[in-house]
Amino acid sequence: MPKLDLASIPQTNATGYPAPFDEPVQGRFYRRLAPETGMEKLRASHVVLEPGAWSSQRHWHRDIDELLVMIFGEAVLIDDTGESLVTAGDVVAWPAGQENGHHLQNRSNAPCVFVVAAAGDYQTDGGEYPDIDMVFNSEGYFRKDGTQYETQRIP
Amino acid sequence: MPKLDLASIPQTNATGYPAPFDEPVQGRFYRRLAPETGMEKLRASHVVLEPGAWSSQRHWHRDIDELLVMIFGEAVLIDDTGESLVTAGDVVAWPAGQENGHHLQNRSNAPCVFVVAAAGDYQTDGGEYPDIDMVFNSEGYFRKDGTQYETQRIP
Repeated sequence: MPKLDLASIPQTNATGYPAPFDEPVQGRFYRRLAPETGMEKLRASHVVLEPGAWSSQRHWHRDIDELLVMIFGEAVLIDDTGESLVTAGDVVAWPAGQENGHHLQNRSNAPCVFVVAAAGDYQTDGGEYPDIDMVFNSEGYFRKDGTQYETQRIP
Repeated sequence: MPKLDLASIPQTNATGYPAPFDEPVQGRFYRRLAPETGMEKLRASHVVLEPGAWSSQRHWHRDIDELLVMIFGEAVLIDDTGESLVTAGDVVAWPAGQENGHHLQNRSNAPCVFVVAAAGDYQTDGGEYPDIDMVFNSEGYFRKDGTQYETQRIP
């Protein structure tokens, strides 16, 4: 059935971020939906952010469009233009190449749940983390001096 | 701001379906999100289905992955395998090339709201409507004998 049985899809809080950048995403529990469904053109994650957790380090993508749909709860969207509250029913879009580092922080007392869909060229994709000494491309994570972190990036 | 001001995005119930196939989608009001946001790799629509309305005629896509996230309310998903109820928080995925005609019908007494994201090759895409005498490709709508309907398909 095309309706997903979310409970049957493995959920993880794994991250390839090197320490200490991994700490704020320990409370981010996600399910990768594309492998489960056979989709090859669109990727998607179903994400539960526990109170205090971040969706990611603040970042942007060169060659990937991202679209977020908030389903339950709320989180604060932070980007170069400031902060805004994202609540159930809100939709957020980040077009490829827009160098506006963004992430969500769950500052509420309850989990929030959202889906992020993404499409584009994962081979040529890359981007930056404006708040920390890190950039990324399809090979992994790097310091801004070009030296690579030893962790493996999770696609 | 990447958070979308949905109320400011034009909403329409326009359809290119020829009569009488257009009738069940008169209560489908949608906003196209990609033109608003500058996304070129991912397309998305924010859809309000009034009671009684259908999301589309039952169809499938050859070269487009589709992902639906139900935000508010409920609708019945119908495909070749039967019927299932889709409620807030449910996610439905239709991978490109899976010849399983699908649509949603709002059989409830209240509107439902969902977002559909899609990615793939719109030039080569096409597909079929298993319940009616219609197929589609990037050129428009056709009868199964190959003759074209006179209406314009809305991409």
